[in-house]
Amino acid sequence: MIAQNLNVVKEPKVFPDQPRREIRMPQLEGYEIIKGDFHLHTVFSDGSVWPTVRVQEAWRDGLDAIAISDHVEYRPKREFLSGSLNQVHDIALPEAEKHGIILVKAAEITRRMPPGHLNAIFITDADELENESWQEALEAAQKQGAFIFWNHPGWQAQQPDTCIWFDVHETLYRQGLIHGVEVYNFDEWYPVALDWCRDKNLAFIANSDIHEPVPYMPGYSNYFRPMTLVIASEKTEQAMKEAMFNRQTVAFFAGKLAGPQQWLEKLFHASLVIGKPFNVKPDGSASVTLTNLTDIPITLQNEQGRTFRLEALSALVMPVENYRKGLELPFLITNFYIGTDQNLKISLSLH
Amino acid sequence: MIAQNLNVVKEPKVFPDQPRREIRMPQLEGYEIIKGDFHLHTVFSDGSVWPTVRVQEAWRDGLDAIAISDHVEYRPKREFLSGSLNQVHDIALPEAEKHGIILVKAAEITRRMPPGHLNAIFITDADELENESWQEALEAAQKQGAFIFWNHPGWQAQQPDTCIWFDVHETLYRQGLIHGVEVYNFDEWYPVALDWCRDKNLAFIANSDIHEPVPYMPGYSNYFRPMTLVIASEKTEQAMKEAMFNRQTVAFFAGKLAGPQQWLEKLFHASLVIGKPFNVKPDGSASVTLTNLTDIPITLQNEQGRTFRLEALSALVMPVENYRKGLELPFLITNFYIGTDQNLKISLSLH
Amino acid sequence: MIAQNLNVVKEPKVFPDQPRREIRMPQLEGYEIIKGDFHLHTVFSDGSVWPTVRVQEAWRDGLDAIAISDHVEYRPKREFLSGSLNQVHDIALPEAEKHGIILVKAAEITRRMPPGHLNAIFITDADELENESWQEALEAAQKQGAFIFWNHPGWQAQQPDTCIWFDVHETLYRQGLIHGVEVYNFDEWYPVALDWCRDKNLAFIANSDIHEPVPYMPGYSNYFRPMTLVIASEKTEQAMKEAMFNRQTVAFFAGKLAGPQQWLEKLFHASLVIGKPFNVKPDGSASVTLTNLTDIPITLQNEQGRTFRLEALSALVMPVENYRKGLELPFLITNFYIGTDQNLKISLSLH
Amino acid sequence: MIAQNLNVVKEPKVFPDQPRREIRMPQLEGYEIIKGDFHLHTVFSDGSVWPTVRVQEAWRDGLDAIAISDHVEYRPKREFLSGSLNQVHDIALPEAEKHGIILVKAAEITRRMPPGHLNAIFITDADELENESWQEALEAAQKQGAFIFWNHPGWQAQQPDTCIWFDVHETLYRQGLIHGVEVYNFDEWYPVALDWCRDKNLAFIANSDIHEPVPYMPGYSNYFRPMTLVIASEKTEQAMKEAMFNRQTVAFFAGKLAGPQQWLEKLFHASLVIGKPFNVKPDGSASVTLTNLTDIPITLQNEQGRTFRLEALSALVMPVENYRKGLELPFLITNFYIGTDQNLKISLSLH
Repeated sequence: MIAQNLNVVKEPKVFPDQPRREIRMPQLEGYEIIKGDFHLHTVFSDGSVWPTVRVQEAWRDGLDAIAISDHVEYRPKREFLSGSLNQVHDIALPEAEKHGIILVKAAEITRRMPPGHLNAIFITDADELENESWQEALEAAQKQGAFIFWNHPGWQAQQPDTCIWFDVHETLYRQGLIHGVEVYNFDEWYPVALDWCRDKNLAFIANSDIHEPVPYMPGYSNYFRPMTLVIASEKTEQAMKEAMFNRQTVAFFAGKLAGPQQWLEKLFHASLVIGKPFNVKPDGSASVTLTNLTDIPITLQNEQGRTFRLEALSALVMPVENYRKGLELPFLITNFYIGTDQNLKISLSLH
Repeated sequence: MIAQNLNVVKEPKVFPDQPRREIRMPQLEGYEIIKGDFHLHTVFSDGSVWPTVRVQEAWRDGLDAIAISDHVEYRPKREFLSGSLNQVHDIALPEAEKHGIILVKAAEITRRMPPGHLNAIFITDADELENESWQEALEAAQKQGAFIFWNHPGWQAQQPDTCIWFDVHETLYRQGLIHGVEVYNFDEWYPVALDWCRDKNLAFIANSDIHEPVPYMPGYSNYFRPMTLVIASEKTEQAMKEAMFNRQTVAFFAGKLAGPQQWLEKLFHASLVIGKPFNVKPDGSASVTLTNLTDIPITLQNEQGRTFRLEALSALVMPVENYRKGLELPFLITNFYIGTDQNLKISLSLH
Repeated sequence: MIAQNLNVVKEPKVFPDQPRREIRMPQLEGYEIIKGDFHLHTVFSDGSVWPTVRVQEAWRDGLDAIAISDHVEYRPKREFLSGSLNQVHDIALPEAEKHGIILVKAAEITRRMPPGHLNAIFITDADELENESWQEALEAAQKQGAFIFWNHPGWQAQQPDTCIWFDVHETLYRQGLIHGVEVYNFDEWYPVALDWCRDKNLAFIANSDIHEPVPYMPGYSNYFRPMTLVIASEKTEQAMKEAMFNRQTVAFFAGKLAGPQQWLEKLFHASLVIGKPFNVKPDGSASVTLTNLTDIPITLQNEQGRTFRLEALSALVMPVENYRKGLELPFLITNFYIGTDQNLKISLSLH
Repeated sequence: MIAQNLNVVKEPKVFPDQPRREIRMPQLEGYEIIKGDFHLHTVFSDGSVWPTVRVQEAWRDGLDAIAISDHVEYRPKREFLSGSLNQVHDIALPEAEKHGIILVKAAEITRRMPPGHLNAIFITDADELENESWQEALEAAQKQGAFIFWNHPGWQAQQPDTCIWFDVHETLYRQGLIHGVEVYNFDEWYPVALDWCRDKNLAFIANSDIHEPVPYMPGYSNYFRPMTLVIASEKTEQAMKEAMFNRQTVAFFAGKLAGPQQWLEKLFHASLVIGKPFNVKPDGSASVTLTNLTDIPITLQNEQGRTFRLEALSALVMPVENYRKGLELPFLITNFYIGTDQNLKISLSLH
């Protein structure tokens, strides 16, 4: 019953190697889908982990890019941890290089509403964003070439009963100081913000805004961590930045996608395989297997209101009536959003 | 606290729709990989479920094809269930058609060793296999065009301390009455049988041989159900039969593959994506991400004996020394078997 | 890389021993809680498994008693399986004796509504229940000493928009031909039936009514299998029968309990441990740990409407105001039902 | 498909309330079993989380007591985080009080071997342990009333091929400067250390020594976190300290227990329920159900070498020969250790 080496016995099942959990995305011809979480905190502001932990978590969770965005103006642990906010990036960078994770320098400008909280990512010096005037802070970020997005616009601590696009935001938007909006943050989303993104051509963003260790977000086992899919020409920081300024982003959160119609359509058709109809009967009824080869679930609703849920990496058999080759079946994809109360519409063409 | 309809309240979480769990296979140009389990039992011999259950299980488990192979000579429930053995197929067929599962008519010729138990699949009439002489039973199957394989050759009930290829098997093999061997059955495998398959050009077969409901085989959560991958030109019974007679099969069991070298090589290269080297240092060290986009785990061992385990749908970062573009790295794939003590050797070419 | 015995290698993780999953019940002084499922089907009526499977499933799932209640009048597999309905019990009994499971002989009298379907359990001869008149069939069961309950009264196939206690049921009830009601069946429950049980002193019953292999009921991982808790003097068939006729039953389904107030109170207080208050502050605020040492979840709602959910085998810290020793805190237990819209009320007394 | 509040929609499944996972222990008359982990690190030495995280983790994992034992002499983040080591305790204490977790002040004296690393817990001032002489550091701890244990004696970084009790340790032991030994640390254990504890009357200790967030220790799902069970008169810091000095501890790690024979015996008998024999046959064979009502697995080996594994909260049926009332069955409990190659022996007395 006793192992042979009495000095030390390893229990490999206690601490197994944890490889990266790859998230299966559709393949888009000519593009790479970069999985990013651009809103994270550490002990340097009000988070509870060291910056390197954010990189390790991103690796394990299948992300390609992160931004650690500690609060510029809110540093409750300053008594213990002070100095330049750029330290966070410097500490995390070697870990990111080790894992091949794109680490974007970032900071969160943290004000009362309006304008609320805004993340500036792709910055070069976080300390320059420390400025009593938020207008000047944002302009400093802009000068550094930052991509700026408004965080959690409907956060109830700042907008208890509303989720309003204030005049202040309109002004910032016209000044080129807002390029995107978090339509999802942590464990909540803001349906009205979907129309803002669609109508004003803003990037759809979803982030975790996590302060604790990520595994405390147990939605993990139900869904993936919220993330922003950036559809870029290649997996580099530069290509990702260009794609974000070009609004080639899709928010992926709680089993839902939200983004521009053209990209959701491409993602949909690259995710779903329509089988050859079988069990064709004289009365025209037949069966078709729909297979989802990605980790994005898909919920289809047909014209009669019947719903078909295709979980990640799964398949279902759909009954078809009046089958003929080339028959077009229209569906509403009820977990793909292109606006506040607007879902993606697609048509499946049968073999 | 009470739902509004006081007559009846559904609890959807108790009995959710169970979609098919699709198993992610590598894409082989010009081929379809058919996932099959060709050894199953029902109440018509010594199993404990009705034939339709085997089809439903196959659907949920991501299989494409099954053979229900009740024992011809061993029917312990005959007192309750008698009549033609073809009934099994007739009962299961409508369920198979409903789900688009290929159901192959089959039976298990069940004798003492030698020759032991043999499965005949693609038969047309199971009752013709009821014959006192196993030689004649096998010839009857052959006349029906059957593909015949030897089941669990090292089963300890029949070969307690050995796993021998008897003279009887050699004779049958020369008569064209054995086309494959189960190198894996239920929860065990037979390493010596791998050399038989390699040297005699027999099909490598893995089956569950399940008698109970499949969910009682809890290896499910550790691995998948054992299965035979048939590499066919299309997903039809005819193409599958041709591929099997052409020995285009790979056994997939307990996280391992066993099959002909050429097919394992193809499967390997279609499963693994080698990333662009990063973190390249002046001393020539670099990092490379290896991503496994399939549900087949891959264990690589380098020349120094270090092991890298790539779980299903996961990635790992491998350190590289003396990096240069085009560098060839040799590996032994220790969970891919081409013979009894012979693993697949491959070479990874760096970008 | 190759195991030493090349003849046969076992993969123990594929088919591990499956012990019984014991369900942790509260300890009631002087009583045993028998966990029963009294409504199961097999291939002998419209189920899909052999009778022995029902015993094996009961053992694994932590049950103590089952009744296999195949339909007397509905035997769609009669073409294959005919003969006495008592065969089911005879086949399953040795398996039950092997596992120490109480196997109660039973049958389901299967008619249009009214009276619908009724289970007779503790019968001695199922064949005597085959009678054109359901009145006579029930009387035959009564003569055998059966405990009779009405199955799924709100089943939509029989009562599409209602769940009515018909005059027929009132008559049967007065004749002593109905002793209990399934308030829960498979994946649904009938809130109105809770008042019937309370007001007419009928036994609260919950059963699976499973036809397929039980693991196909995936609520398993969310909850346990539905079951009837019989509070008996000892774990024997005789004591169980007495307890059922004495209405000492509680239905346990989908994370809920339904039963007589006195028994729910006893179960509640035997499940919950109230810790010593800590973190007591000068303003009277304090914290109390509530620990649930059973597998029955408990949801407490305080007078302000705040809800505390105590999962199985878990604990939570509850804030208390105006703490003093002996303070009584009233709660509604929103997942313990004593009537249609009536939850158990309890009071926690602080140390 | 859209929720009614378009401003903000919560996704409760993403971040559900996480109650404490209570670990079911045997009930020992007159004692409380305190579950402790007395070796933890934070960002104040070489850990990666804030001190409050250690308390939250302990709560969720079902622990009652922890000691955060940052390294006195090794503080690689000192450039960022400096000052008194007592800060760690001060930061974590309010969180501990909020959850009712016993937080013991501690520090790890961190030297080359010998004497290696030693934890001093129940100290009053960590800064006084900063002393070039480890002898003086240990004496300072002793003056504060510390309970001192030797950490990971067979850690391969310090004892690559051995696990030796050095003369230095013998001297410290005689000076009353070592009261216990970690027989388990993180993912490994040291069989030889079990004999030291038994023969020298030292406390058996098991700790996680975790540096990362605890959920990164995935053995979680296989086992619990390693912990030291302190068998105390009540759940207070004072009672726990007395019990530890009195050697009333049992190490619980990787599904194993190690401790003094008398306590393992008590724990065993309080964990296991022996059912009434059933299925008694004329030849004397019978069946007995063994039920484990705790979260400690139990592996019994009978005199014929057959092994019975009783998982947490589970049951099994054991065959018995020559049954008679009062029959004594001897077993070796192969996962309960009282010495290096010595398992607990017990006798089960049949009803």
